[in-house]
Amino acid sequence: MLEALFTPQTIAVIGASRTPGKVGHEIVANLINSGFEGTIVPVNPSANEVLGLKCYPDLKTFGQKVDLSIISVPTGLVKTALEGSIQAGCGAVTVITAGFKEVGAEGAKLEQELAVLCRKRGVRLMGPNCLGLINTHHKMNASFAKQMPLPSGISVLSQSGALATAILDWAAFRHLGLAKMVSIGNKADLNETDFLQAFAEDEQSKVIVGYLESISSGDEFVKVAEAAASKKPIVLFKAGTSSAGQKAASSHTGSLAGADIAYGAAFHRSGVIRAETFESIFDYATAFAMQPLPKGNRVAIITNAGGPGIMAADAVENMGLVVASLHDSTATALKDKLPPAASVANPIDVLGDAPPDRYALAMEAAQKDDGVDAVIVILTPQAMTEAAETARAIARCMDGSKPVLVSFMGGLDVMPGRKELAASNLPDYPSPERAVAALKAMCDYVAWRQRPPRIVTRFPVNRHRAERIIKQHIRSETKNIGEVKGKDILRAYNFNVPPGELAVTSEDAVSIADRVGYPVAMKIVSPDILHKSDLGGVKLNLNNSTEVQDTYDLMMMRVKQRMPQAHLEGVYVERMCTKGREVILGMTRDPQFGPMLMFGLGGIFVEVMKDVTFHLAPVTAREAKQMLEMTRSYALLKGVRGQRSVNIDGIAEGIQRLSQLVTDFPLIIEMDINPFIVGPLGTEPVAADARITLNLEMGAKLL
Amino acid sequence: MLEALFTPQTIAVIGASRTPGKVGHEIVANLINSGFEGTIVPVNPSANEVLGLKCYPDLKTFGQKVDLSIISVPTGLVKTALEGSIQAGCGAVTVITAGFKEVGAEGAKLEQELAVLCRKRGVRLMGPNCLGLINTHHKMNASFAKQMPLPSGISVLSQSGALATAILDWAAFRHLGLAKMVSIGNKADLNETDFLQAFAEDEQSKVIVGYLESISSGDEFVKVAEAAASKKPIVLFKAGTSSAGQKAASSHTGSLAGADIAYGAAFHRSGVIRAETFESIFDYATAFAMQPLPKGNRVAIITNAGGPGIMAADAVENMGLVVASLHDSTATALKDKLPPAASVANPIDVLGDAPPDRYALAMEAAQKDDGVDAVIVILTPQAMTEAAETARAIARCMDGSKPVLVSFMGGLDVMPGRKELAASNLPDYPSPERAVAALKAMCDYVAWRQRPPRIVTRFPVNRHRAERIIKQHIRSETKNIGEVKGKDILRAYNFNVPPGELAVTSEDAVSIADRVGYPVAMKIVSPDILHKSDLGGVKLNLNNSTEVQDTYDLMMMRVKQRMPQAHLEGVYVERMCTKGREVILGMTRDPQFGPMLMFGLGGIFVEVMKDVTFHLAPVTAREAKQMLEMTRSYALLKGVRGQRSVNIDGIAEGIQRLSQLVTDFPLIIEMDINPFIVGPLGTEPVAADARITLNLEMGAKLL
Repeated sequence: MLEALFTPQTIAVIGASRTPGKVGHEIVANLINSGFEGTIVPVNPSANEVLGLKCYPDLKTFGQKVDLSIISVPTGLVKTALEGSIQAGCGAVTVITAGFKEVGAEGAKLEQELAVLCRKRGVRLMGPNCLGLINTHHKMNASFAKQMPLPSGISVLSQSGALATAILDWAAFRHLGLAKMVSIGNKADLNETDFLQAFAEDEQSKVIVGYLESISSGDEFVKVAEAAASKKPIVLFKAGTSSAGQKAASSHTGSLAGADIAYGAAFHRSGVIRAETFESIFDYATAFAMQPLPKGNRVAIITNAGGPGIMAADAVENMGLVVASLHDSTATALKDKLPPAASVANPIDVLGDAPPDRYALAMEAAQKDDGVDAVIVILTPQAMTEAAETARAIARCMDGSKPVLVSFMGGLDVMPGRKELAASNLPDYPSPERAVAALKAMCDYVAWRQRPPRIVTRFPVNRHRAERIIKQHIRSETKNIGEVKGKDILRAYNFNVPPGELAVTSEDAVSIADRVGYPVAMKIVSPDILHKSDLGGVKLNLNNSTEVQDTYDLMMMRVKQRMPQAHLEGVYVERMCTKGREVILGMTRDPQFGPMLMFGLGGIFVEVMKDVTFHLAPVTAREAKQMLEMTRSYALLKGVRGQRSVNIDGIAEGIQRLSQLVTDFPLIIEMDINPFIVGPLGTEPVAADARITLNLEMGAKLL
Repeated sequence: MLEALFTPQTIAVIGASRTPGKVGHEIVANLINSGFEGTIVPVNPSANEVLGLKCYPDLKTFGQKVDLSIISVPTGLVKTALEGSIQAGCGAVTVITAGFKEVGAEGAKLEQELAVLCRKRGVRLMGPNCLGLINTHHKMNASFAKQMPLPSGISVLSQSGALATAILDWAAFRHLGLAKMVSIGNKADLNETDFLQAFAEDEQSKVIVGYLESISSGDEFVKVAEAAASKKPIVLFKAGTSSAGQKAASSHTGSLAGADIAYGAAFHRSGVIRAETFESIFDYATAFAMQPLPKGNRVAIITNAGGPGIMAADAVENMGLVVASLHDSTATALKDKLPPAASVANPIDVLGDAPPDRYALAMEAAQKDDGVDAVIVILTPQAMTEAAETARAIARCMDGSKPVLVSFMGGLDVMPGRKELAASNLPDYPSPERAVAALKAMCDYVAWRQRPPRIVTRFPVNRHRAERIIKQHIRSETKNIGEVKGKDILRAYNFNVPPGELAVTSEDAVSIADRVGYPVAMKIVSPDILHKSDLGGVKLNLNNSTEVQDTYDLMMMRVKQRMPQAHLEGVYVERMCTKGREVILGMTRDPQFGPMLMFGLGGIFVEVMKDVTFHLAPVTAREAKQMLEMTRSYALLKGVRGQRSVNIDGIAEGIQRLSQLVTDFPLIIEMDINPFIVGPLGTEPVAADARITLNLEMGAKLL
């Protein structure tokens, strides 16, 4: 897909210029310098020739079919240039020119017109307001960034042109190649999801890397990213995580950045590896591009100095990987060949005077040891150290069975070695910690790849009953569904809700209490009263009919005195819940990624400790359980100090039912089941209270 | 101090060699090449001349006074060389040779002999097993690492010679200078604390940097580091934080690394800035060495690209700094001078085509704005970017009032700019995040410097009473002090302990209960019974004399039945504690840093959430309060959901009294006050249980 964009035969540059430094000049120069083998068609009415190529006043005069048109003319002339490109048969257009959505409403309108024009004719549009694109495997630098990387397996998409240039400049410095690079600009048509898909299908792209500030469609993104990540690693950096960052993001791109937690959940769900810092983007990408995936997390460390070996071992353990225990046979073999002072435990210390072949010996031993899943090699530049020759020696004995990540520490002296490492596909890091962090990213990706198939359970429920209640609220324009009706909805989804009914007289209350069984709880029901307890509107543990009758009368009297204007629907009478651990199940609908489920232990664990986890709905049984396991307070559910475990699977099922409910009804934009009371194994958890918020505007449209 | 080491006039190199590559050759070569202006005396019985210098068979033949002797001869010959050096009047000796403590007991013995020899004669010994030292301001490279850095204000001490070479190599690559560099080796005599002190007093050292695997004396270290940090910043990396790292550390240096948490507490206490990664060591050090300290944490960001500006803003907020709100006048001034598309909010976006003077304008505006405490400048290499000239423009308009940290992102194109930055004392980072992290380290250091004077309150206590109880336990070789005697000790230190006494008959129990007041708690007392409750040995809330009498009899009967061999001392009868929030005060004695106090909320907060803080004893009132504030659950003490705050100062006072107790009695090696029950403001907290563990071996010596 996107052949016209990535592998065009004929490229028009509209706005080609004879003046060096001008964008329209640089693009033509870059196309020539990158060795592009197709036809370059400069277009400029006031030039006959650009950089030795015949220049046309317009594409009509050129008269032949064009595959890709790159437009770099003043904003006011872009539309005409685009029309001309479409008439010339372009399959894709790249608009470099800025001054559209990012500058205001008028620009946004013009941008929209460009997108509509293209869509009508089936032409794909990249930009506007972008740097252009590069395809090293097609010898094409169709951007105004001068560096043309060597061909490799890393493809980059960047929502910031400047960052793309920084990446290209860095890659040149580190002798690293790229496959494709696109600067996606304002995303009038082609967006991050289109490029994810294109790179996923592209054989030359082994690893996908991206810098994003916003995502155009969350649903699409998750679907495409999950499919892509199943084929190859995706490493993304998402800017605008803090509120300050978001402010900057909205003034920069005119697009609203989604909440950070939702992005985290979306990346987690779709197997995207999240880079937390700028440097980690390529730290991870080079590891993935250059080395095989590890089969486990047991790490051997080879070093010519104790200190950095300790650093690496610290990092391995702190990141949750394991310092491998080497086989006795490995140690014995090393002992025979290494000097007596060398350490043949892990870290393997080949000593400060280690020549290249000593590194090779250690490498071979570590690769052979089946207790080792990955190898970290560290070199410090000591008096006898031959960095370049050691790099070659390591490369020579690499057997491709396990990932090997290298840290040549230092600067001047190790630089020749670093060049060799890059040339030999050995990812190299300035510190042991960064090498280990990259390995950890690999291990996480492997774990995601090995997840079982995602099968979302559909429980048999009474969907119509829930729908009826929701529709009633939409019709009466009642945004909040209170406890009584909320519990009816939960009952429809087969949640275990304490038996209870609404009483409108004290006799009513007694007969309900008799029916549901004592002790009961009674709560005033009124759309106008949020904090029932404060007004004396909640009473618990009522044990007989007299108490129920008295409570009903007293409650009505008190509440009427204290809040005379409140509309009172009656009193809800329900059987008291049995005791147990209180947890919260919740949902909030992210504007980008839709329903996000929340789990946490009740009370202070949510409010003070912020000990909650989120997951995109719908969830599988395994994912629901992981939401529990990922809280710090999980041990409390499993039971501490001899307490019995609560019914973990019961909570997980509650999350799944909630997931089904909020997936069935997009009108529900927020929901809490709080508390959800869970007892020991063998008992069924109880949904003790429920609050649901509806999207009335959306509801009005649907009715 | 250490003049003979750092500014010698005459240096002997014992083991000087004519063979290039040999350590004894490289040291002479490095001394010559570094431009050392004093006398170099090569010593080697089998050479007449080394590198053009007259070589002597021994120092006696040389016949003149030597200041510093550098010894690089085989291990077996070191002692003789050392004796010769001492006779030649050396003030300091550096032993490069390895093969001592790090290889085993015999080596350790030999090493000890060297140390004793030196101590007797007042000669300071550096090493053995080290790289040597460098003093750029004395034009002296007395090491076998070939790079001689330019003079600057950063002094380095490293417990790993290899890491020192990596640092030198990196500094050469980044055009960064150093002041002094020492490789401390096995620390037979001079250790990290000696060098900390020397660098603290050294005018040429503006910032102290260190890599440590162990600390020789915790007490000394804290004292010296605190004094040094009050004068200048100290940035330390401590290896061996994980258990795997520790394993590697002990096999490497033969020294036991202290627990990571104790090091953290010691660094925190003494104002040492801890570098968490290898790269952050110099990220921080260059910021401190090159720029003034910030007066606050409000950060202005200047950038020529939106994306990296967002990255910086994200980092500022995530690290707890503040994205400054620029004054209206600043924005107006910028608006007048910058192109209309530029953003004059913070981040200030000078646009992708920014020439150097646009950066200068923004810099001047940010420096003038008194709502700004620090400036982060970001440059990405775009088509029109002039990296070197921009670096010079930034440097020219720096007024020294606020720290300016720079990130020139990219590689090849920005390299000329980076060189200029280093030359102009502008710290430069490969990513905005790393620049912000360095600024954060500066802010933390400023906060530490501004702390009020540390005044430890001494409470009037009955120290003799506590001493008597402790001595009794030492005499009877009873390691654990139980609840009854533990509470007596707490009473002696004026803790509020519920009134109670030991009863040995049921009548006794009743009369005690009558005296202390009902309701009471009763607990069986026996050195043989750890889990009293399990045996029915604890009863709570007894309301009258009959209940007390019955309980006594039943308890004695039951416990005798269930554990007939246990020695029963009686039953402890005490008034029931009032209810309140349960917290834990504790202490564990670190082998390096002595008593470490612990605070945490009781029960699951300690056991499951691990939500505890540590601080070295003794603590001030402010530090005790900080221990509370630094727990995640602190909000629970302050009161959530309309609850009243508990008596925070009461807890802090409890920590201070505990601090005084464990400082007074080094024999106490572990202690828990759990629970320490604290009620609302105006009430006095209660120490409801206490366990104390003594160091019997130490006790036996003292008695």
